[in-house]
Amino acid sequence: MNELRIAVVGAGRMGLTHAENLARRIRGARLAAVTTSDEARAAAVRGCCGDVAVYPDLDSLLNAGNVDAVCISSSTSAHADNVEACAAAGLHIFCEKPLALTVEDCDRAIVAAERAGVKLMLGHVRQFDAGHSEAKRTIDQGAIGKPLVFRAISGDVDPPPPSFADPAVSGGLLLDAMYHDLYLSRWLLDDEPVRAYAEGGALVDEAIGAVGDVDNAVALLRFRRGAMANFFVSRTTRYGHDVRVEVIGQEGAVQIGGSPQTPLRLLDRAGVHHDLPFTTAERFDEAFVTELQVFVDCVLDDEEPPVTGQDSRATVAVGIAATHSMHEGRPIVLSEFDS
Amino acid sequence: MNELRIAVVGAGRMGLTHAENLARRIRGARLAAVTTSDEARAAAVRGCCGDVAVYPDLDSLLNAGNVDAVCISSSTSAHADNVEACAAAGLHIFCEKPLALTVEDCDRAIVAAERAGVKLMLGHVRQFDAGHSEAKRTIDQGAIGKPLVFRAISGDVDPPPPSFADPAVSGGLLLDAMYHDLYLSRWLLDDEPVRAYAEGGALVDEAIGAVGDVDNAVALLRFRRGAMANFFVSRTTRYGHDVRVEVIGQEGAVQIGGSPQTPLRLLDRAGVHHDLPFTTAERFDEAFVTELQVFVDCVLDDEEPPVTGQDSRATVAVGIAATHSMHEGRPIVLSEFDS
Amino acid sequence: MNELRIAVVGAGRMGLTHAENLARRIRGARLAAVTTSDEARAAAVRGCCGDVAVYPDLDSLLNAGNVDAVCISSSTSAHADNVEACAAAGLHIFCEKPLALTVEDCDRAIVAAERAGVKLMLGHVRQFDAGHSEAKRTIDQGAIGKPLVFRAISGDVDPPPPSFADPAVSGGLLLDAMYHDLYLSRWLLDDEPVRAYAEGGALVDEAIGAVGDVDNAVALLRFRRGAMANFFVSRTTRYGHDVRVEVIGQEGAVQIGGSPQTPLRLLDRAGVHHDLPFTTAERFDEAFVTELQVFVDCVLDDEEPPVTGQDSRATVAVGIAATHSMHEGRPIVLSEFDS
Amino acid sequence: MNELRIAVVGAGRMGLTHAENLARRIRGARLAAVTTSDEARAAAVRGCCGDVAVYPDLDSLLNAGNVDAVCISSSTSAHADNVEACAAAGLHIFCEKPLALTVEDCDRAIVAAERAGVKLMLGHVRQFDAGHSEAKRTIDQGAIGKPLVFRAISGDVDPPPPSFADPAVSGGLLLDAMYHDLYLSRWLLDDEPVRAYAEGGALVDEAIGAVGDVDNAVALLRFRRGAMANFFVSRTTRYGHDVRVEVIGQEGAVQIGGSPQTPLRLLDRAGVHHDLPFTTAERFDEAFVTELQVFVDCVLDDEEPPVTGQDSRATVAVGIAATHSMHEGRPIVLSEFDS
Repeated sequence: MNELRIAVVGAGRMGLTHAENLARRIRGARLAAVTTSDEARAAAVRGCCGDVAVYPDLDSLLNAGNVDAVCISSSTSAHADNVEACAAAGLHIFCEKPLALTVEDCDRAIVAAERAGVKLMLGHVRQFDAGHSEAKRTIDQGAIGKPLVFRAISGDVDPPPPSFADPAVSGGLLLDAMYHDLYLSRWLLDDEPVRAYAEGGALVDEAIGAVGDVDNAVALLRFRRGAMANFFVSRTTRYGHDVRVEVIGQEGAVQIGGSPQTPLRLLDRAGVHHDLPFTTAERFDEAFVTELQVFVDCVLDDEEPPVTGQDSRATVAVGIAATHSMHEGRPIVLSEFDS
Repeated sequence: MNELRIAVVGAGRMGLTHAENLARRIRGARLAAVTTSDEARAAAVRGCCGDVAVYPDLDSLLNAGNVDAVCISSSTSAHADNVEACAAAGLHIFCEKPLALTVEDCDRAIVAAERAGVKLMLGHVRQFDAGHSEAKRTIDQGAIGKPLVFRAISGDVDPPPPSFADPAVSGGLLLDAMYHDLYLSRWLLDDEPVRAYAEGGALVDEAIGAVGDVDNAVALLRFRRGAMANFFVSRTTRYGHDVRVEVIGQEGAVQIGGSPQTPLRLLDRAGVHHDLPFTTAERFDEAFVTELQVFVDCVLDDEEPPVTGQDSRATVAVGIAATHSMHEGRPIVLSEFDS
Repeated sequence: MNELRIAVVGAGRMGLTHAENLARRIRGARLAAVTTSDEARAAAVRGCCGDVAVYPDLDSLLNAGNVDAVCISSSTSAHADNVEACAAAGLHIFCEKPLALTVEDCDRAIVAAERAGVKLMLGHVRQFDAGHSEAKRTIDQGAIGKPLVFRAISGDVDPPPPSFADPAVSGGLLLDAMYHDLYLSRWLLDDEPVRAYAEGGALVDEAIGAVGDVDNAVALLRFRRGAMANFFVSRTTRYGHDVRVEVIGQEGAVQIGGSPQTPLRLLDRAGVHHDLPFTTAERFDEAFVTELQVFVDCVLDDEEPPVTGQDSRATVAVGIAATHSMHEGRPIVLSEFDS
Repeated sequence: MNELRIAVVGAGRMGLTHAENLARRIRGARLAAVTTSDEARAAAVRGCCGDVAVYPDLDSLLNAGNVDAVCISSSTSAHADNVEACAAAGLHIFCEKPLALTVEDCDRAIVAAERAGVKLMLGHVRQFDAGHSEAKRTIDQGAIGKPLVFRAISGDVDPPPPSFADPAVSGGLLLDAMYHDLYLSRWLLDDEPVRAYAEGGALVDEAIGAVGDVDNAVALLRFRRGAMANFFVSRTTRYGHDVRVEVIGQEGAVQIGGSPQTPLRLLDRAGVHHDLPFTTAERFDEAFVTELQVFVDCVLDDEEPPVTGQDSRATVAVGIAATHSMHEGRPIVLSEFDS
């Protein structure tokens, strides 16, 4: 096989991004099909990706049978079922994060892929961002000495619609929006959390409170070898999409922020003014391309993907533990929770 | 009274700084005396402050009787006794932070000053730093909307000697080194904490662990109106004295960092290089002058000092609560602890 | 016409960039053909752009006759002839900068396009960079008051091969590498230079000196309404592609620099380290797309292009005047030179 | 001699600064006297420096005879006479920049100090700023390779009163305000200029034009070994005191700017805002102390001062050459001018 035929399952915002990248920017792959039952989205797919087969659902796609791999961008609650079906069809799988909303569903998906002998890679996009991957290399080379503390902030400008904010759909703020930072703390500290504590509240958006979720939260993790992590996650930082991570070590520190969108500074009597150093989705544009390229290369070269189902399962477990802590007002020992 | 005669009690590092500032840089005040029983320190005082009376202890100073006010820079465990003695002598009191290591001692000192009708101001130096005071103004003017989260990092380059690290002397890392950030969170959020949780460890310095303290810790506070705070405090950030605070609000954020010590950037093939944006004590040089000037002005103009004994008492209570949380592995409700 | 068929003339570095952008990223256009007599370059074109017609030269392309417009990326000395031929064939023309190496050749190309009634737009790419265009808007809105001085630095990492550095081919450093800054000074100050002075030398690369050019130079322009401009241009800033512009006005200033390539900062005992804030060609990647999109839109909507042949002619005139000044050791009055 | 008795000649803004520094911050020196015929200034001196002898003029000071050295802060046109008188009295001399407004007067002062065998040091304050001195060390250690170009900007917020702007008093913009940058270019490039060209205009302040000076100018120097320098000097950058220098070399570059005055950043929907990175006089506060300390140490240790009369003479010559160039519209060869 020297060209992978990939179908994108789901044509929401992420599905469209993946479809366009597969159509234009990924070497060794061809966008073979997209599934959506929504005619407007089908039109949007054709608008950005040219002539591509559109199926109303995954079953039709699998029946048609002329693809080698899928990129699953359906809603999270459908991920495990989708993975099982695609694995059964022998397709290699790239799946948006998180793998599922429960540890049990994660396990079901992981087992299905293993039994079928297909690749399963998760879309942990920030691991493929130049800043984050360079930070990982820098830490692993010892430049900051022993890592002591991971700190992260993750702020979204606009709250999601209440329907999506429903924890039954999204998993809740600590599993949904804090997921990336939880995973990054494990990856950058190269350690596993043992205890979680969180506090949160619907401080700004009453609609989010009404469906039983919070819009702002802080969390704290303790890791096996002693390191600690500090998180702040918000759906309401209206000043910008504020995404920053730092790791402080015994001999140094790395900080991953963002650069101003426009390299322009205005100086006037009031001071110096420039763009927000954080952007919306564009911040990780390149990383979305890189992660799919890595998946395609892993399949073509028969190598193990760098983000596995287990990586997602462990992150989901921490997110659920933090959510329990927030609701119960006590620290959750991970082993108690995830037996 | 148009010139305040002030004595500095104690001639350690902070005592020397205060003495030199009083001798050279504070308007309306005169350095009248210093107490120290150590001849080398007495010589250091004379070296930087010129001809000044040196008494071996506080009693001798009080007996001599020709001062209007004191700046207490003795060890923290002596603060409450010193305040009582000075208040009884009718002297106005500027006291280094924290007021004491227990809530009871704080109360004792506060009552003594109130009964004697003397001013009592605490040395919360960072409140008088240009960055922090401008941040306070900015928040109070509504520029960031409703404050949601306070984040702080406070890293020291060199661990203190084990004798000082002894929690019986210092109060432990969370009361000693995290004190400034705990106070700043109350001051900048303009709210009181209701619950504290902390995790810490002797990750780097075994000697600190041996005396029963930790060298790195993270903590988390919940406030009455819902806001939250995130802390990281370290005695072992060997790369620099890393002191940063930020407050994230619904409409904006303020960040208080530090500027490079030298305004020089070197560009070479490896990238851009500049000084650490944080310095050692010099970072707050100006603020040490400002706080004493504010104290002197308050006494001369008979106004209420902007940092009271109650401010320190409340901060001490939070520090102790966080310490309990760290040792007991559970969140501490402040009202449970401080009845 | 709702889709413009464009051919790219020349498949050097810039030609390939334009071809790939036309093939993938420009709305309303289709890459119809590329001309190159070099088989390796033809293969490179097919590699990045898919199946596209390749002609050995411009004549063959014009004979084949099925394009609406051209993007001229041939060597500068061929530009004027190419423009004349394409204009005669009724094609709209996007031409890489500069239009020609002499004012007479510029005039010849301008007249040809005017007579044929085709659009002629020049590839002044930096005008379409987000930083530069935002700076223009900021200045035009009065945010910096009356502009007083333009300052620019333009440094290239690697000197070109001596064959290209030959002033007979490139026009010399002041016309070739300083061209963008000369144009930007006119555009951002919204004024025309009246006098030029320059100094330069082959300070680093003897091969450049041997062919009669310089590798580093400074220049100074006086403008009609009094404003001034300061330039530094270098072929030998081995530490990075250093491209910066600022305009200082009576009430404020704008600075256009670059952002670090990777949003990562490393802090260690030696200080803070990050990427160079300037990159190689990627710095203007987006702008290369924008300029072609603007051209395509102008043709489809029958509007005047924002960068005309006269803009290039005036810039070429200043570059030649500065070159004369450098060689003759005296300021050159533009009216004396360009009658 | 283990304590130098220094008198300050003149009690204008700079005289007061030097007097206060000598009274409070210079080791090994004692402020012995100040000269001023203005009673208000005499009072200001006593206000900041305590009890100090005040003489109405230099003669009275010299007659009183109990000082070892002087710090000359009179108006520039009096410098040469003052130096001659003090040298004749056997006093060591620290003199504010520039030494005089003509090369002849510089020579007169230099000869007087040499004949009397007294130290003569010039107040080139920026050489003693931490940023500039670290830049010098960095360049001398080879970190940027061979220096190619020096670039400077020097902007003042408020134009001086027309009486001072009179070129007969100040020497004109290019000698007065550009003096520091002219000197720094010689010092940092470690080379001597051979040719100067300048353009300037009274673009903002008609009163400055009326007395025959300009308020904004650019200049360009060519140095003996080929390096070049670019200057922009302004009396009207109302947005701030904008003082920046950079040296670009073959392998790297150094940039000396300023840090924000307050380490506070505000982030809101409009972007990121912070203080101007340049300040007024405070920018060089420390350097004013350092330069006097260096002078005192040189006298006490009998060492050669690091800034000599010849350094000022050479800088004055370049400033006058640039002024001639601006008025005559031609480059001035330094050897032609300064025979």
